[in-house]
Order: sequence, then structure tokens, then C-alpha cells
Amino acid sequence: MLSAGRNPPVRTWILAAMRHLRLLHGRTHPSRVVPKYRIKFHYTELKGMPTASSAPSLHVLVRREDVDPARLAGRVVVVIDVLFATSTIVHALGAGAAAVYPARDDGDARAAAARRPGVVIAGEYMARTLPGHAPATPLALALHLVRGGDLVYLTTNGTRAIAACAGAAAVYAGALGNATALARHVVARHPGQPVLLLCAGSLGRFSLEDFIGAGHLARALRAAGDYAPTDAALAAEFASMGIDPGRALSTSRVGRIVAGAGLEAEIAHAAACDTCDVVPVLRDGVLVRAQA
Amino acid sequence: MLSAGRNPPVRTWILAAMRHLRLLHGRTHPSRVVPKYRIKFHYTELKGMPTASSAPSLHVLVRREDVDPARLAGRVVVVIDVLFATSTIVHALGAGAAAVYPARDDGDARAAAARRPGVVIAGEYMARTLPGHAPATPLALALHLVRGGDLVYLTTNGTRAIAACAGAAAVYAGALGNATALARHVVARHPGQPVLLLCAGSLGRFSLEDFIGAGHLARALRAAGDYAPTDAALAAEFASMGIDPGRALSTSRVGRIVAGAGLEAEIAHAAACDTCDVVPVLRDGVLVRAQA
Repeated sequence: MLSAGRNPPVRTWILAAMRHLRLLHGRTHPSRVVPKYRIKFHYTELKGMPTASSAPSLHVLVRREDVDPARLAGRVVVVIDVLFATSTIVHALGAGAAAVYPARDDGDARAAAARRPGVVIAGEYMARTLPGHAPATPLALALHLVRGGDLVYLTTNGTRAIAACAGAAAVYAGALGNATALARHVVARHPGQPVLLLCAGSLGRFSLEDFIGAGHLARALRAAGDYAPTDAALAAEFASMGIDPGRALSTSRVGRIVAGAGLEAEIAHAAACDTCDVVPVLRDGVLVRAQA
Repeated sequence: MLSAGRNPPVRTWILAAMRHLRLLHGRTHPSRVVPKYRIKFHYTELKGMPTASSAPSLHVLVRREDVDPARLAGRVVVVIDVLFATSTIVHALGAGAAAVYPARDDGDARAAAARRPGVVIAGEYMARTLPGHAPATPLALALHLVRGGDLVYLTTNGTRAIAACAGAAAVYAGALGNATALARHVVARHPGQPVLLLCAGSLGRFSLEDFIGAGHLARALRAAGDYAPTDAALAAEFASMGIDPGRALSTSRVGRIVAGAGLEAEIAHAAACDTCDVVPVLRDGVLVRAQA
């Protein structure tokens, strides 16, 4: 497709320009030549850089509004809402809940609860617990759960993102706590299938904590299997290597809001990587633990 | 706004849950407790983390399609198309071009050229030089320029992004080569004004090289002045600290395409940070060097 660079005159121009550039460098102010930042690079820890291959793609979308439902068919989707929807779902299933119904909106949550007498219903909107609902954060909600019981769960971004992905080949809930377990499961269960890491975001906004979570999941997937990462997936990987998760979560916009409400322990819990092997998968409209 | 966490029962639940968590940890498989990645964190090099402040916002959009023209008023916009539109504009003005007309499309470019007899017209679409145009990459194009002459320039993403920002308070072209000079200029010339770093992207796709460029510019701006970074700006900063620019550019999708066409020298040139003090600003529809 591209031929200009193989054209001998173009090569000659480039060599001439490189000589020209050295002259230009001589005119550059010395203070500009020294890099401003003392950066330690550690990209050698990344799994091999992408090459042309037949490996399935690994992509990241930074907010649920960017999902094109027509492009979900055949894809494995991992929804990521680190503060707190998917972290809560992972923790709730780990704490013994049998199934979590991810509600699309308030009416959907009420209808789902009406079909399940005695079910626990938890929810928040804009980080506030909804009236009459159990709290929507992992540690606080776990105290309301009944072992073997169901949960109806409504959040501003995460459960809506899960509900929007019904057309995918498979839908999982990903968090920092289950990144490696989830990655190994996806590689084993869906060989050769493209994977989309869907950051829930925050009402159309980019969420730092979800992007960092996507970076950890992308690295875990590429450690476990062979994928062709897109530019967005690589950017998420690099970002997740530029800061530690606890710092990222408490620095994020949502993290600062919930820390201001005294929920630092919830943030610290959500920031802990690879603490459990719970793999929540969407089956018949509810999230259940996938079989290993 | 948020009060649940200040509620004594909620604090009690959280403490109980923390005790519960330690029990849960006892059930965790030991191999999952050890972090998988040997990550060296260096976030202490970042300028102070954001706090509630009256500092102007610093935001990053990952593709030109995400621009809301209604929200440009009062904002300083820096358009970033590292491979190669804005890198080329910086280099062309540094090499002596008087003004660069950023064309919206082919017809716009032809009309602009017709109004400027003898002007150099350069352009590419999807990384191929357009027929009858000078090449659109920094080093190759510089050999076609006349000192003091004008340039009409059309690219797939970058010049279209610049043309789409006419409603902003000011529009600049940013690249790795002029990051620090541009940041110092913006801080001095636009005190207190919000800044939007607009990644051109690639036909609606996220471009790694532009996001890395935005990260370098965000860090340069926060080194020079006081800004409140959004989550997207912080993510770009972290990503730019997770990999060195040369590696990022050659790893990106566009970088792999142009490297395949033999343009490695152009990539290396575009990846060099802070090599010049050229600050291209949009004035009366053309990009010219801003006065220091």
C-alpha cells in the first residue's frame, strides 16, 4: 500500500534532511536538549510488542457510550467499573451470593426485585446510596448478603454497561481483584476470540480508575495468551505501568469524591490486585461464578 | 453531598468487613497474592496530585470526533497529531515557512492554493502522499519549502482537527518537539484559561502516539503552571511515563504502517522531545509562529 519510502529519491531526501537536522540541533537552546523529566522506562516488562499476526484483537473502550452494539457479536466483553460496580460484583459472588442481576435503571431493578421475593437490592446513583437500597460498595454491601441468595444491583455506570452488552459472545465483570483469574479463564474458554475491555466510565466521562483497570487486565490477558493489542489497549497498559493502583484510584475524580465521604477502606480494597479467583459471567441475564 | 461514610453504623460495617476480609484472604490461593508484575512505580515524579482548587482545567480528548464545538468557547486548544500533521507544522515553521494553511478537505486545499499562486501544497490521505502534492512528513516536506513562503497542508486527521476548532479562544499545534516551549507560551499568554489537549486520532480511532504526546504536553503544562487535570489528562500523563516516546511511536498502529514504508527516520524525528521553540498558533485561519 505504501511505497513512497521505498522510492530512492525519498530516501535521499531523508538522508539530506537528517544532515539538515543536525545543523538545526546546533541552533537549539541548550536547556531544551536535556529532557525535563527524569523518567525511568520499564517497557521491557511488557510482553512482546504487537506485530502483524492472526492473533485475536484486544481492544479498550474508555466509556460505555462508545459501544457499538452492532460490533459486539463474536466478541468477549469484560466490563470494568472499578469504583465500584464490578469490584462489588466480584466481591459479592466471592462472599457467597448466588447471582447478581445487573439492573438497567430504577424500574428494571424494582421489577427484578419483585420477581425475587426477599432478594437484597443494592444501588447508588452518582455515588449516593439510593433510598431503601443496601449500599453499593464491596465491603459495606457484603454485610447485607445472604449466602446462596441473589442480589439486584443498580449503579450509575457499571450495571448499565453490563446490561448494554447482551449481544456479545460472552460478558464478564472485571476488576483489579480478579484480573489474573479472569484473564486465564478467558484465554482457556474463548481461544482465538477478540476481547473488548469496556471501561464503564462516568456518565460519558473518561474514568482514570477504569482505564488503569483495563491496563492491568490487558497485561494479564497478554501474559496468559496471544492477543493483538490496539493502540488503546497499549495506552492502558502503559498507563497502568506509570502508577500504582492504589494511588490511581485515590487520585481519580470518583476516588476523590468517595474518599471525601470517608470510604477510603473501600478504595483500598478495590485497588488490591489478584486477591481472588472469582470470575463473574453473564448467564441468562444474571452474573454468576463461572466454573473453573 | 455524600454522607453515608460519615454515618457511624457504616463505619462500623466497614471495620467489620475489614476483619471479614482478612478471613477471606486466608482462603485465597497463595499464587494469587504475589503480584504478577515487577512494576517499578515512579509517580512521585508527577507534579502534585489534583486537589479541589480554582485552577483552570486541563483535559484530553482522544479523538477529534469527540470535540463538542459548543464547548470550545473560552478554551485554549492544543491539537496533537504526532504522526505527522502537527510535528510537520512545527518543523515547517521552524524551517522557515511563513504560514501553514490547515485544509479541511481536498476542495478546501485546492481553493486555498488557488488564492496563493506558487504556494507549496502538501498532503496525504491514509498515510499516502496525494497525487501532485509534496510529501506530508516533516523531514521530506522541509526539502520542498521556500523560506518565507506559505504552505497549504492537508492530512487525514490533524489539519481537519485544527480546522474544526475555530471556535476556541486560541488554537495551537503541539508535538513532542515543541512541548515545553508551547507549554510555557500557553501558561504566559493564557493565565487562568482552561486547556484542551485534542488528540487528532485516526479516523475515529484512538491513536497511541497522540495520547503519549498529550501526556508529555500535560506534564509540561503542569510543570510550567497550575492546572486541575481531569482523569483523561492524568491517564495520558501516566501512559507517557510508562514508555519512552520513540518506542511508543514505533509501536503505534500508524507508526508500524509508516515504518513499513521505510519512514523510520521520520518517526525518530517526531519522537524527539523539546528540540525546538516553535509555537504554531492559528491566526486568521493560518498557523504562524507565535511571538515569544
